[in-house]
Amino acid sequence: MDTYSNKKILILGGLGFIGSSLARKLVDYGAKVTIVDSLIPEYGGNLYNISDIKDKVKLNISDVRDDHALKWLIKSQDYLFNLAGQTSHADSMVNPKVDLDINVSAQLSILESCRLYNSDVKIIFASTRQIYGKPDFLPVTEEHPIRPVDVNGINKLAGESYHTLYNKIYGIRSTGLRLTNTYGPGMRVKDARQTFLGIWIRRLIEGHKIRVFGDGSQLRDFNYIDDCVSALLLAGASDSTNGKVYNLGGHEIISLKDLAKLLTSDLYDGEFEIVPFPKEREVIDIGDYYGDYSLITKDIGWKPKISLNAGLVNTINYYTKNKIHYWDA
Amino acid sequence: MDTYSNKKILILGGLGFIGSSLARKLVDYGAKVTIVDSLIPEYGGNLYNISDIKDKVKLNISDVRDDHALKWLIKSQDYLFNLAGQTSHADSMVNPKVDLDINVSAQLSILESCRLYNSDVKIIFASTRQIYGKPDFLPVTEEHPIRPVDVNGINKLAGESYHTLYNKIYGIRSTGLRLTNTYGPGMRVKDARQTFLGIWIRRLIEGHKIRVFGDGSQLRDFNYIDDCVSALLLAGASDSTNGKVYNLGGHEIISLKDLAKLLTSDLYDGEFEIVPFPKEREVIDIGDYYGDYSLITKDIGWKPKISLNAGLVNTINYYTKNKIHYWDA
Repeated sequence: MDTYSNKKILILGGLGFIGSSLARKLVDYGAKVTIVDSLIPEYGGNLYNISDIKDKVKLNISDVRDDHALKWLIKSQDYLFNLAGQTSHADSMVNPKVDLDINVSAQLSILESCRLYNSDVKIIFASTRQIYGKPDFLPVTEEHPIRPVDVNGINKLAGESYHTLYNKIYGIRSTGLRLTNTYGPGMRVKDARQTFLGIWIRRLIEGHKIRVFGDGSQLRDFNYIDDCVSALLLAGASDSTNGKVYNLGGHEIISLKDLAKLLTSDLYDGEFEIVPFPKEREVIDIGDYYGDYSLITKDIGWKPKISLNAGLVNTINYYTKNKIHYWDA
Repeated sequence: MDTYSNKKILILGGLGFIGSSLARKLVDYGAKVTIVDSLIPEYGGNLYNISDIKDKVKLNISDVRDDHALKWLIKSQDYLFNLAGQTSHADSMVNPKVDLDINVSAQLSILESCRLYNSDVKIIFASTRQIYGKPDFLPVTEEHPIRPVDVNGINKLAGESYHTLYNKIYGIRSTGLRLTNTYGPGMRVKDARQTFLGIWIRRLIEGHKIRVFGDGSQLRDFNYIDDCVSALLLAGASDSTNGKVYNLGGHEIISLKDLAKLLTSDLYDGEFEIVPFPKEREVIDIGDYYGDYSLITKDIGWKPKISLNAGLVNTINYYTKNKIHYWDA
């Protein structure tokens, strides 16, 4: 994409799964990329994620809660991909204040820095389908009521709302994407903090049974990482998206049980088991979810392209080969 | 109300307009009231508000951002009326971080203190109609989309959502009331930080022209303080309200211009002028608003009882007599 050629790009959370994949693409496009990441062990940052492009990007290790650093980093950037966040729903219930500091307070600091020091920047914000809560109807459109079911959802909603507000009031251009389950090479597989698919793939490769919570009937949609990155890039490239928020979504809706079957029978040799929900997860589960992504298709032509089969095969192959860099710190 | 006789009650923001009026009523009912207030000059706290009951309540000067103090204060209380907040929409745009600390972070600390040290307490939370934003339809029901138009609205929504969540997940009983324009003796009249009616009444009594922003056609509803206090008390007394959020609202809908006419011609001798919106207010104005309060009527029988005429006369009389205690610090 010519849009990004020679442009200065800041990626918050740039050592993470999505941030590093985005950085790789932007380097391809000739952009000048600065990656900011806190490398907090419980989050998604992993230096190996940028091992192939490390000489082509600037790396700044710092936390989005460090608003003095942010101020300097944000100055003079053309694009800001705001992907840093606390992503674990379960952790947000155990440490709600940490989730608040990262997903609410730091977001406001980022926007204030833009307002004061770089009001021409364009921001692309990674929001989440979690803010809808338990769907009233499927597929979930952007008009669906917003009823978060956990602290993370409440906080991400505040963070997203600040972005929309700063676009409206101060003209700081920003676009929000409500991500659904994104998966692929580079995702966190140590545990289920980022996506349950991470720990599933790891257990599959390790020869352990995949554990499906509940009765396995919960429907979900998925985006392979390349599709997610392409949505971020398209959203950044078009001013028609300013002030708006879009669902992403997958075109193959599948139940968790069928997904486990697919992984353990068709794509790899393994086993799965249906186990009761852990209490702390059951209370924040949202039942079936899949999103309507027709709005972003209409506005900027984004559609997911990678099939679930192809995406999962790529992912399994990647972790089979690179597991040493992801299993442990 | 027998419910509150001999009960231990904590009122956060208890030196403010609503908190002090509530405290007075609770003292009447034989409750053991502890008032917490920060007495920050820009907020609603005023020692004169409790001058008649000061020997019948405990007063603890502290800030809701002081979570160590909160922990001790919350222990062993039967009811917690959570009324402390930053209420100015305009201030929330100038100092968004302060609004966040009070209306989001402190709310989470309050709920965490309840969860850890007093999970039997019943909380009544003062929310605001501001979270709806510009109405799609009137009167606004609780099902209306939530689209806050300023930082204060975004933050109050997060605070309200935490309360609903802690009720659902941890069984901390809580009820939210979305207040509309509350007015009456004890309200802040130094400026428009709490309600525009405060500064209107002050200017009226001072012999200055009341300033109506915009074209004066904006519709609003109002609750006299006694009606608001009665809603808080009824909500606290009934476990059927747990986990729910209710609109308050007035039965007399009036435009700002007609309200200015009523004040300056029928109820008092004065003048008003229609002036353009200050830029910083125009961008966060919500147009017409009035709320549907049928849900709270159905559930616990609350209805506003005091007419606008009677309420405004009481208010003017109060400030004519007591202005020395409200005009300046």
